[in-house]
Amino acid sequence: MSKLWGGRFTQDTHKEVESFTSSLSIDQRLWKVDIQASIAHAQMLGRQNIIPPSEAQLLIQGLADIAKDLESGASTIDPCSEDIHSDIEKKLAHKIGSIAGKLHTARSRNDQVATDIRIYLRTEVTEIEKIISELQAFIVQKASEHLHTMLPGMTHTQHAQPVSLAQHLLAYFWMLERDRERFHESQKRINHLPLGAAALAGTGFPTDRIQLATDLGFHSLCENSLDAVSDRDFIVEFLSSASLSMMHLSKLSEELVLWSSPEFGFVELADEVTTGSSIMPQKKNPDVAELIRGRVGLVYGDLMGALTMLKALPLAYNRDLQEDKTFLFRSVDTLKSCLRLTHLMLKKASFKAQKMKSSLEGDFSNATDLADYLVTKGLSFRIAHEIVGKLVQHCLENKIKMEALTFPELKKMNAVFDEDVLLILSHEAVMNSRTSRGGTSPKAVAAQLELAKKLLNIY
Amino acid sequence: MSKLWGGRFTQDTHKEVESFTSSLSIDQRLWKVDIQASIAHAQMLGRQNIIPPSEAQLLIQGLADIAKDLESGASTIDPCSEDIHSDIEKKLAHKIGSIAGKLHTARSRNDQVATDIRIYLRTEVTEIEKIISELQAFIVQKASEHLHTMLPGMTHTQHAQPVSLAQHLLAYFWMLERDRERFHESQKRINHLPLGAAALAGTGFPTDRIQLATDLGFHSLCENSLDAVSDRDFIVEFLSSASLSMMHLSKLSEELVLWSSPEFGFVELADEVTTGSSIMPQKKNPDVAELIRGRVGLVYGDLMGALTMLKALPLAYNRDLQEDKTFLFRSVDTLKSCLRLTHLMLKKASFKAQKMKSSLEGDFSNATDLADYLVTKGLSFRIAHEIVGKLVQHCLENKIKMEALTFPELKKMNAVFDEDVLLILSHEAVMNSRTSRGGTSPKAVAAQLELAKKLLNIY
Amino acid sequence: MSKLWGGRFTQDTHKEVESFTSSLSIDQRLWKVDIQASIAHAQMLGRQNIIPPSEAQLLIQGLADIAKDLESGASTIDPCSEDIHSDIEKKLAHKIGSIAGKLHTARSRNDQVATDIRIYLRTEVTEIEKIISELQAFIVQKASEHLHTMLPGMTHTQHAQPVSLAQHLLAYFWMLERDRERFHESQKRINHLPLGAAALAGTGFPTDRIQLATDLGFHSLCENSLDAVSDRDFIVEFLSSASLSMMHLSKLSEELVLWSSPEFGFVELADEVTTGSSIMPQKKNPDVAELIRGRVGLVYGDLMGALTMLKALPLAYNRDLQEDKTFLFRSVDTLKSCLRLTHLMLKKASFKAQKMKSSLEGDFSNATDLADYLVTKGLSFRIAHEIVGKLVQHCLENKIKMEALTFPELKKMNAVFDEDVLLILSHEAVMNSRTSRGGTSPKAVAAQLELAKKLLNIY
Amino acid sequence: MSKLWGGRFTQDTHKEVESFTSSLSIDQRLWKVDIQASIAHAQMLGRQNIIPPSEAQLLIQGLADIAKDLESGASTIDPCSEDIHSDIEKKLAHKIGSIAGKLHTARSRNDQVATDIRIYLRTEVTEIEKIISELQAFIVQKASEHLHTMLPGMTHTQHAQPVSLAQHLLAYFWMLERDRERFHESQKRINHLPLGAAALAGTGFPTDRIQLATDLGFHSLCENSLDAVSDRDFIVEFLSSASLSMMHLSKLSEELVLWSSPEFGFVELADEVTTGSSIMPQKKNPDVAELIRGRVGLVYGDLMGALTMLKALPLAYNRDLQEDKTFLFRSVDTLKSCLRLTHLMLKKASFKAQKMKSSLEGDFSNATDLADYLVTKGLSFRIAHEIVGKLVQHCLENKIKMEALTFPELKKMNAVFDEDVLLILSHEAVMNSRTSRGGTSPKAVAAQLELAKKLLNIY
Repeated sequence: MSKLWGGRFTQDTHKEVESFTSSLSIDQRLWKVDIQASIAHAQMLGRQNIIPPSEAQLLIQGLADIAKDLESGASTIDPCSEDIHSDIEKKLAHKIGSIAGKLHTARSRNDQVATDIRIYLRTEVTEIEKIISELQAFIVQKASEHLHTMLPGMTHTQHAQPVSLAQHLLAYFWMLERDRERFHESQKRINHLPLGAAALAGTGFPTDRIQLATDLGFHSLCENSLDAVSDRDFIVEFLSSASLSMMHLSKLSEELVLWSSPEFGFVELADEVTTGSSIMPQKKNPDVAELIRGRVGLVYGDLMGALTMLKALPLAYNRDLQEDKTFLFRSVDTLKSCLRLTHLMLKKASFKAQKMKSSLEGDFSNATDLADYLVTKGLSFRIAHEIVGKLVQHCLENKIKMEALTFPELKKMNAVFDEDVLLILSHEAVMNSRTSRGGTSPKAVAAQLELAKKLLNIY
Repeated sequence: MSKLWGGRFTQDTHKEVESFTSSLSIDQRLWKVDIQASIAHAQMLGRQNIIPPSEAQLLIQGLADIAKDLESGASTIDPCSEDIHSDIEKKLAHKIGSIAGKLHTARSRNDQVATDIRIYLRTEVTEIEKIISELQAFIVQKASEHLHTMLPGMTHTQHAQPVSLAQHLLAYFWMLERDRERFHESQKRINHLPLGAAALAGTGFPTDRIQLATDLGFHSLCENSLDAVSDRDFIVEFLSSASLSMMHLSKLSEELVLWSSPEFGFVELADEVTTGSSIMPQKKNPDVAELIRGRVGLVYGDLMGALTMLKALPLAYNRDLQEDKTFLFRSVDTLKSCLRLTHLMLKKASFKAQKMKSSLEGDFSNATDLADYLVTKGLSFRIAHEIVGKLVQHCLENKIKMEALTFPELKKMNAVFDEDVLLILSHEAVMNSRTSRGGTSPKAVAAQLELAKKLLNIY
Repeated sequence: MSKLWGGRFTQDTHKEVESFTSSLSIDQRLWKVDIQASIAHAQMLGRQNIIPPSEAQLLIQGLADIAKDLESGASTIDPCSEDIHSDIEKKLAHKIGSIAGKLHTARSRNDQVATDIRIYLRTEVTEIEKIISELQAFIVQKASEHLHTMLPGMTHTQHAQPVSLAQHLLAYFWMLERDRERFHESQKRINHLPLGAAALAGTGFPTDRIQLATDLGFHSLCENSLDAVSDRDFIVEFLSSASLSMMHLSKLSEELVLWSSPEFGFVELADEVTTGSSIMPQKKNPDVAELIRGRVGLVYGDLMGALTMLKALPLAYNRDLQEDKTFLFRSVDTLKSCLRLTHLMLKKASFKAQKMKSSLEGDFSNATDLADYLVTKGLSFRIAHEIVGKLVQHCLENKIKMEALTFPELKKMNAVFDEDVLLILSHEAVMNSRTSRGGTSPKAVAAQLELAKKLLNIY
Repeated sequence: MSKLWGGRFTQDTHKEVESFTSSLSIDQRLWKVDIQASIAHAQMLGRQNIIPPSEAQLLIQGLADIAKDLESGASTIDPCSEDIHSDIEKKLAHKIGSIAGKLHTARSRNDQVATDIRIYLRTEVTEIEKIISELQAFIVQKASEHLHTMLPGMTHTQHAQPVSLAQHLLAYFWMLERDRERFHESQKRINHLPLGAAALAGTGFPTDRIQLATDLGFHSLCENSLDAVSDRDFIVEFLSSASLSMMHLSKLSEELVLWSSPEFGFVELADEVTTGSSIMPQKKNPDVAELIRGRVGLVYGDLMGALTMLKALPLAYNRDLQEDKTFLFRSVDTLKSCLRLTHLMLKKASFKAQKMKSSLEGDFSNATDLADYLVTKGLSFRIAHEIVGKLVQHCLENKIKMEALTFPELKKMNAVFDEDVLLILSHEAVMNSRTSRGGTSPKAVAAQLELAKKLLNIY
């Protein structure tokens, strides 16, 4: 029996149990961070004279060699290992003999695993922040080309008021900005070092956790050993942030699906990011957008799964926690690829300014401004609203575009109208008039773009 | 370009898009059912003279050969294929040339995929029903050995009334019985044949869907082509039933974890189904139970993921649906292995009757019967309850076990007590008195066991 | 202290604890079923001589009087009661004195509550089945008016093939049919009587649970007392079925929202079921559809909540279960109102056949049939697909509608085309050709309608 | 018709639609913040001369009067109002006549509602931070009393190593600290002012949003009008943080439930925070802990519900969002009460130091230290682990407590043992030796307590 914990056991683990409890297929991606953390641990053990420095050196060299072998393919992970940590430990024993066992001094699998995941995740989160900011930068660039491209701004999927495509795209900039901010802040809670908590209670060896934290790039320590080995909050927090981010991408994907339908026709996605049908020769389907929209379910599911796993678990470590990586790794992969593909899809999108514009004709999205105009003539907004409501009704019944109404027609409807009403009736006038901060007029959007660039450090 | 749908496209699919949209790593397990369904489809095409019978024969032979090759390992699935269906189609073209293309007559990927998943799932559900009934049979057997083994029945994790271990185990029999019933009924809704709906609207070819259903073992047809290609209800229904079943296993696992703690000591799990600690030599951990408890999160997560994916999707097929298999397959695997391991764990469990019994001493779980006794003496239950409540208080303060109270002591507390009270005070008496149907007395449990056996057809 | 369980307690419950643990605001809707179940229990107690028949009569009369008082408003529920059961018990004591206490003989709050919820739910499920079948009947009627109304059948929100509005509406008929079937089958598992399980272990009183079940309309008994008081599977099963049903409504609502946008214009919702905007006078918003789509979140949330609550709970009753009603009642209310409002919304919808039809022009949704045509001329489908794909490309580049191609033009593209190709190019021809079972041709849909009517018993 | 948007409508809203769309029962708790935000808006309108300052004054006075009336009960909310905003608007019109309509200048319901929720939530979050820190302060105090109270530290619910009660309680301090930090950081994203975005596109009136933000205590502005009216990220973020916090409370509750079982007996909860049973006179149930554990389902459910609602919603405002408050308000209430009741429950808990200590006897939780001892004698940890594993086996077979082994007995087992081994075998010695930072020795815990106090500003 080659288990690391067999002393008190008189019977071998059942074969089905071995495969049921194995986590290797999931956790093998941690091999590099596991070696990194072990090397730092061995250095600390030697520095503190917990083991002889010469032995520490042997451990370090052995670990470095294993990393080299795995990197180069000279060695591979044994698929029969219980988990990646056992695998590396066995490799080390093979390389340097029984001294390898000393690596486990003053640490346990519990604090080791927790340390590995945190190193892994903080790197991934940094990468995700970068991918997000690249997507934001692209949005900023695209928006700056479309300050004057008009389309119907929608509420309730009904035409509400004309907005610019720049304004529409920038809405996603701010969603992504919150995502990025949230991921960035979460790093603080990822970056607590659990190593040194040992199994659950700390250790009597004179470890130096502060130096260890510095060596491994952690900003602070898990200050309670029971909490150190059982805390998976940072995983749930990641999954929450990832859910929000995927939700944003699902909105954008939904819009791209709608916009690329013939009914809307606001966008055409490139051949490279669409697929056809095996039966219908005419099809060009926005599969990438649909898959992103569908994969939000993966991340929501992982979040719910992790929360379920943690519900009502007593202290400290429990084996239930092994599934944390199943949830985490899938969501990391899903979010990263969906962010990247969103970027690619947008890059390959061709927005149809003419179609957007023509969809505004006769759509009454200039009605609010007519009401606002009446307010400037002294009416209360409520009364102005009612007058314009009836005017809309009139136009609908007579199939007239509101922007095509003449001054006499308007005057006939209500004496308050002056000739200057014609200045505010066109969709261009309406959009350009929204000059308040955050509004859709080209001027306001230009100011918004400046803010966005500042946040991204683009000048 | 080797895509099956390239006609109207002028540019190749982007490489990142190919890997993003590929489902092969997930859907390759469908190869066998895909070939099975294709053979039946080819037979129907030939029989109906939609294609010449001789060509149908070629298709069938080619498909059978592919199956043989994959089975024997003579051929493997090409990891670059878009999905398993394309892979088999390419293999077929390779085997029999351009005739292979005729297999796609009167069907589309949309109805083909839906058919494959249904065949796959109904087989798995049948298998799950069998695994459940085996676990139930084991519970029945174990329970029949423990009709007189007493332990504290708990409410609120407080001792309530003594029950037999048989009664406790049989509670799980009934949970599993409902699971089995639910899975069985769900077969009805899995067993609708979508094949023949083509892309979404049916076909003009003179197909015979009824014969096709019979050939493939389907009980009925999807009667609306739009619904046929978009319906994934049967997957959500499976995930719901699996969530309930996993929830039951999580309860049993929780109890095995508690019971194997030294504080309870009601059960000892065998070495073969426990693991040790890499740092603590004394540890013998109920890992299997913990993993089952934790993996309920996988199945809950898959359920939520599938529901999310389907929310607000318009008709008919959308690419979002590709993820259905991700959710389904993981939950099928998880449920099956957790059911099997629960069975193994129970088989290897050694229940500690003596420890269970001793935990009843002085625990007041006989108090209800004392109150019931007073009711038979004419008091209302409310008053009896209050009298016994005060008696419990008295025993606690004076550290007396209630079953050790003498008749004079009782008489002193309340004049209503007669000497026959001593007959009902022991825990055995209490348990044996619960003779109502479904109650915990050995006699009632024996009757319950008969019912259980009848449901399992065990005589 | 007026608690029913105060005997062993020396201190009153903390005020904050009272409000925290109170369930009255939730469970008061159970008053009627609680009295119904109590009356049946009292009858049984009398019939079995567990209490004197005359006292049973007093209990029954008292309970009936309380029901009458609450019905008429002569009495109200005391907002300070712990729960509805205590409230009724107090009212009974007030009416008939200490005899009231005898009602608690041979039962406990645990089996009483479980019984109440089951009676409540089976009535609601019957009601829901009825509401669903009314909605189905309306769909059948509406569909029968639209066998020839054509619209673009969509996959990936792209035009795929023309379908009839009847076919589209009937897709929802089948979703609802599965919902109804699922709800109906779930009744079997709701209809197990827990009463008689007492606190958790059964009782020694000579109860007659079979007669009790008959009196209360239950089809079978909970056969294990521990399971009886802790089983909430039927609630999760309801929430699962409700989630599926709400998911279906969310799809329909999504389509109504899209269809009522000016871009689609396939439907106009009536003033009575839409609302305006406080700021935009032109707005007519599909609020009802949006709210239904949003409220799917309530029911998904309740399902997740109930599953979370039940995870890893040991046997038997635990107070956690009190929240079962919070999840259940909200979902019952939500589903019922959303089904009703969907019905109303459809009733008030005006479908725009002309707009639907014109949206098909030049949309290439007739392309599959051109490929199928080529297959009948002896080409493999794969090759036919490619030829038509290129033809689509040609039409797009030259802005030609496919249905407007002349025979010479086609012949020039490919020599295989015969003059009969013109017979299959129109959208009408395409739709009418889908004669396979479940297909969209008027003939196939008429057959489908017959099936649907049969399922609803409409002749 | 009294709707604010009736102009273009010719038919009244259907009665069922009115009740289906009404949000008053949910949003009435916003009346105070709604008036607060309206007053600030009116002030801004006056200051900017968008309306005459005298009219602004009328609006402000009217709103202040309404607040006073509602506060004093002189006026109540009309249950027939559509929502709280309409109710206040009607009251204002009643008070000051048609001038009231001017309040709606340059704003819409969309930005108004978003503003109200943000003001509401930031106040609640501040309150929650305070409640958490009070609970933390209590934990710190309790922990400082129990530096030397020993209990078995558990992993896998098996005895692992002895820890102090202080260490165990402090684990929860750090969970709560992360909760508090997370809530505090989330304020930043709550505190963006949407007001001024109007319906979705900004406004042409010369508003001053920066001053408005200052007046209402917002730190920054929503910088994009489309995003401003549709962003509900801050609600999801709150629900995520609340889910994590409830998860922590569910762990603590689980432990209190287990610890108050007779098997553990580590704690006795006071009469004031427990309840009895209506049938079992001896029962004293940890209902509060169970309800907290169960109510984690409410908050997880709300999180899932909100994420579902937001999935794939296109820009900008959609009526689906109305349910945001349903999710948010219930979770705010649940979290606050569960935090408060946890505090109360702990305050009323009596920890049983003697029982905790006696549960350590012969539990082998000193085994790790024996292995560590052997390491100091030059063995590798792996070998030491195996030796001690066998020793545990020996003790179990011979029913010997490890701490009772004599030096000769140990020496006989393995020659490496020296007499100094006796110094490290007692549980006290084991606990006291865990001196590493974050470890369980009294000295290390004292240092941890200092850190904790510093974080709470307690000196």
